[in-house]
Amino acid sequence: MTLMDHLATRSSRMKASEIRELLKLLDQPDIISFAGGIPDPALFPTEAISDAYASVLGGAEAGSALQYQVSEGYLPLRKWLAGQMGKLGVACDEHNIFITSGSQQALDYLGKLFLSPGDTALVTWPTYLGALQAFNAYEPRYDRLTPDGGNMTPSAYHAAAAAAGGKVKFAYLVPDFANPTGETLSLRQREAVLDLAGELDIAVIEDAAYRALRYDGEGVAPILAIDCARSGGIENARTLYCGSFSKILSPGMRVGWVCAPRRVVERLVLIKQASDLHSPSINQVAMHRAAEAVFDRQVDKLIGAYRERRDDLLGALEANMPEGVTWSRPDGGMFVWVTLPEGTDATAQLARSVKEARVAFVPGNAFFADGSGRNTLRLSFTLADKRAVSEGIPRLAALLKG
Amino acid sequence: MTLMDHLATRSSRMKASEIRELLKLLDQPDIISFAGGIPDPALFPTEAISDAYASVLGGAEAGSALQYQVSEGYLPLRKWLAGQMGKLGVACDEHNIFITSGSQQALDYLGKLFLSPGDTALVTWPTYLGALQAFNAYEPRYDRLTPDGGNMTPSAYHAAAAAAGGKVKFAYLVPDFANPTGETLSLRQREAVLDLAGELDIAVIEDAAYRALRYDGEGVAPILAIDCARSGGIENARTLYCGSFSKILSPGMRVGWVCAPRRVVERLVLIKQASDLHSPSINQVAMHRAAEAVFDRQVDKLIGAYRERRDDLLGALEANMPEGVTWSRPDGGMFVWVTLPEGTDATAQLARSVKEARVAFVPGNAFFADGSGRNTLRLSFTLADKRAVSEGIPRLAALLKG
Repeated sequence: MTLMDHLATRSSRMKASEIRELLKLLDQPDIISFAGGIPDPALFPTEAISDAYASVLGGAEAGSALQYQVSEGYLPLRKWLAGQMGKLGVACDEHNIFITSGSQQALDYLGKLFLSPGDTALVTWPTYLGALQAFNAYEPRYDRLTPDGGNMTPSAYHAAAAAAGGKVKFAYLVPDFANPTGETLSLRQREAVLDLAGELDIAVIEDAAYRALRYDGEGVAPILAIDCARSGGIENARTLYCGSFSKILSPGMRVGWVCAPRRVVERLVLIKQASDLHSPSINQVAMHRAAEAVFDRQVDKLIGAYRERRDDLLGALEANMPEGVTWSRPDGGMFVWVTLPEGTDATAQLARSVKEARVAFVPGNAFFADGSGRNTLRLSFTLADKRAVSEGIPRLAALLKG
Repeated sequence: MTLMDHLATRSSRMKASEIRELLKLLDQPDIISFAGGIPDPALFPTEAISDAYASVLGGAEAGSALQYQVSEGYLPLRKWLAGQMGKLGVACDEHNIFITSGSQQALDYLGKLFLSPGDTALVTWPTYLGALQAFNAYEPRYDRLTPDGGNMTPSAYHAAAAAAGGKVKFAYLVPDFANPTGETLSLRQREAVLDLAGELDIAVIEDAAYRALRYDGEGVAPILAIDCARSGGIENARTLYCGSFSKILSPGMRVGWVCAPRRVVERLVLIKQASDLHSPSINQVAMHRAAEAVFDRQVDKLIGAYRERRDDLLGALEANMPEGVTWSRPDGGMFVWVTLPEGTDATAQLARSVKEARVAFVPGNAFFADGSGRNTLRLSFTLADKRAVSEGIPRLAALLKG
């Protein structure tokens, strides 16, 4: 996905004419981009993945890897993932694992499972734009979830949902190194989300796409693990955990998973059967082999590389940004979230920035379900090498000063 | 996909208890199956596919094949497919081609694009069960399409749709070697479908999954080609052509396509972006290379092998079936459709057949949108070798006599 495509697909709330204008400008090699929320392809474990495909297609499993398979996914991969979830404090087995074509598909299916037009989904302001796009197909309204305190009362959420002609169906959030803010919820905040979900009697969708990419400090237990400990086990849990190999091994293979109570997995299997039968067999077999061979080593490699890029970006922001501009200091993931002075329009700044500073980013407005946040923007550091940071951030800072 | 899985997933209209009972019995090695509607894995072009993955992952495209990509699909594959469609009489370019994860996903997306609850979809009685499953998610009603004559008047279709609270949105059909009947529409029947669709002003969804597998006679033009010739070109066409590599190269790679007017492709791109971002990059690149290398040769190989199996099955039916049992004589594809004497229940016969004759098939009732067709069943010959046919068909015939 090129930067142009990325901007075209992700900034859907920008006007089409604005995007077209930008695309013309971006089709030039001297733009420094902090826009694309994608991993660095130079860090892909290409050799391990190549070996995995070669061993599958040269071995006894070739026929089944090229054939139709069951909708829930490749059994050895599901067992491997159940083991990984166990390491995170979620005791479960393969019946609790459902393979998806990337975690985006999990969000689509969970939207399809839960939402009727007029129902309410609780999301943070801002939240992952792809989640809003997935849910929007099922015509919900959104209400605001504030895990750091200040949520409405359960009865107020219920009343607002009923007034819109539906019910509150779930809370969606990215608790670790969120897209777009980079922020991570504390244990107490996770417990508060579960408390609220319990009072509302709704599901929690835990989007864990970035979870393995922690550069500092200790990991916080997944919401699903806390839920299992409180409720007595995964079959009693209300949390549906969406995982992905996209940020660690390869997004282009499109392999993700849901870890959930068996009754939810069974419903997702029916949805998948009707929608694409199953995720590609061969990619699941190859992903299993590649993950067994290099997953932990690959996580270490990415942590080393991305930590340095994050540090360089934060250092450059500190050294260059004018007063009144603030930003998040993420412990992991891919993003730094920048807040411009009140009244500044980041979309307008992007147009100027691309033309004058030759620097690109994603305006934050697109990530707000209510269309607010016009003075925010997202910077991704995963593709930003030292030169990009040392040249791009001073140019962006100079533009924002001017 | 094993026979058990196949029965479990496809015969969704059988009672769950019936299926469970059958599954226990089918978990035994001496069952001869004509049930699974799947290609023979022994005929997969494994070496060509293996070479394709190796060349992609060992070459300059490795990084982009493992990365995110655009939702419409891999450009060289889209161009190749536009060329293939040109050979079928559909002049088009890459902007008319949209890559899907198998043609099942095309049916799901077209359902999502067209259907609101209460809308009407026109389908044949019987039709492909997977299409009904895909459309059912969007809560349509079905009305009957009879391409061999006897359709209702346009105003009667409109009135019935309006009475159900919606509109007629499309006609769906498999014009070549249909699943489940094996039947092929003549040129005149295709023109009649287009005439009706024109009068109703609705889309036509042409499911061409089996099109390349013709064992006798001359191919009939795709409905889309006829539509383009009548309407002046693909941008004026109302037909949306769904193709698939699953029956020729590999179902486990999950690569299909839609060929349609550009305005429809653009809508499908938005749906895909929200639902799974894109089909796996690596499979699209590998499929393009494998298709360029062996597509035509592979079609010839399958035609030779499957033609012989079809002939063996038809010969065994002729030699063994009791009076009152009739069947289709398909010119291609994978299926023979058997009609039992009026009043015979094929689902009950399946239970007996598995227990007593040790032969499995799919009861035809599942393929009827109105739940009729209880005296029909589907036999697949793609996995049926000479022994399976020479032993299995006499046993099934003896059971039906008794």
